[in-house]
Amino acid sequence: MKFEEKTIKRTEIFKGHIFDVVVDDVALPMGGEAKRELIFHKGAVCVLALTPEDKLILVKQYRKAIEQTSYEIPAGKLEIGENADPKAAALRELEEETGYTGDLELLYDFYSAIGFCNERLRLYLAKNLVRVENPRPMDDDEVIEMHHVSLEEALDLIASGDICDAKTIIAIQQLQLMRK
Amino acid sequence: MKFEEKTIKRTEIFKGHIFDVVVDDVALPMGGEAKRELIFHKGAVCVLALTPEDKLILVKQYRKAIEQTSYEIPAGKLEIGENADPKAAALRELEEETGYTGDLELLYDFYSAIGFCNERLRLYLAKNLVRVENPRPMDDDEVIEMHHVSLEEALDLIASGDICDAKTIIAIQQLQLMRK
Repeated sequence: MKFEEKTIKRTEIFKGHIFDVVVDDVALPMGGEAKRELIFHKGAVCVLALTPEDKLILVKQYRKAIEQTSYEIPAGKLEIGENADPKAAALRELEEETGYTGDLELLYDFYSAIGFCNERLRLYLAKNLVRVENPRPMDDDEVIEMHHVSLEEALDLIASGDICDAKTIIAIQQLQLMRK
Repeated sequence: MKFEEKTIKRTEIFKGHIFDVVVDDVALPMGGEAKRELIFHKGAVCVLALTPEDKLILVKQYRKAIEQTSYEIPAGKLEIGENADPKAAALRELEEETGYTGDLELLYDFYSAIGFCNERLRLYLAKNLVRVENPRPMDDDEVIEMHHVSLEEALDLIASGDICDAKTIIAIQQLQLMRK
């Protein structure tokens, strides 16, 4: 079966700091044309981090897109040039958001919203955490509150809707699978 | 701690069929201002569907955002007015993409890319599947190929990168947890 949708014409809509937007006119594999609205994003990293007390590190923060706070695993966008070394980016975000560093192992490499967006997320497991003496400071437009929770508390936060994002659910399911 | 980022000014960038784009100037809770680039999306549904033979239903399709095919659980966007009844939308997508109907149970309700996008996804478990005699046809710009796979085959598809999206990984982890 033929699947590919070849681009006939690309219209650039927006060039932002976080993402770009284009609309492509595509040739459908079975004939005909369609429009595809697309978001291009530089990618991001996130970390399932377990403290020496075996607690999961979550950060509470405000998310403007949903006008609510949420509890999420530490995460951050890739900066320019970091695509070649996402593990370094994950260590940086972990240190900035939590003050810890550790040993990282890649768990999943996935797209958050594959239907219209190319944001690629790498999820790492961080073990053997140790506190950094003078951690790098956070970005100055971030207000976050760190929490250390048990698996049971994390599952309660999913049930209450306080955890409501895909990457954090994937991390907590992984923790459940590791504990079984 | 104060978290809320109040909107000072909203600039509308794009009104699309799949999503809208705005840039908000916000007042930061600790003083100062920042810009927030945001995607507004109508939401979507997806289905972890198990056949009578206990296989997972996946659909292979082309994803223009990543210029690749991927294997995903059946899914679709909410249509206008369906926000009040996402279960009906999930039944419609299941029937259109697979020719099956069944009993649905909500597993997870989450945001795909909470950092910049309000796309809300509901993931349902579909059990007691039965074939629909004359299933509703698919959208005419969709080319999909249906596959029935075992849990082991699904895990192999994650390892090979053929499964590479958040909602499908959440569904397969859930299946692993159900089987343990």
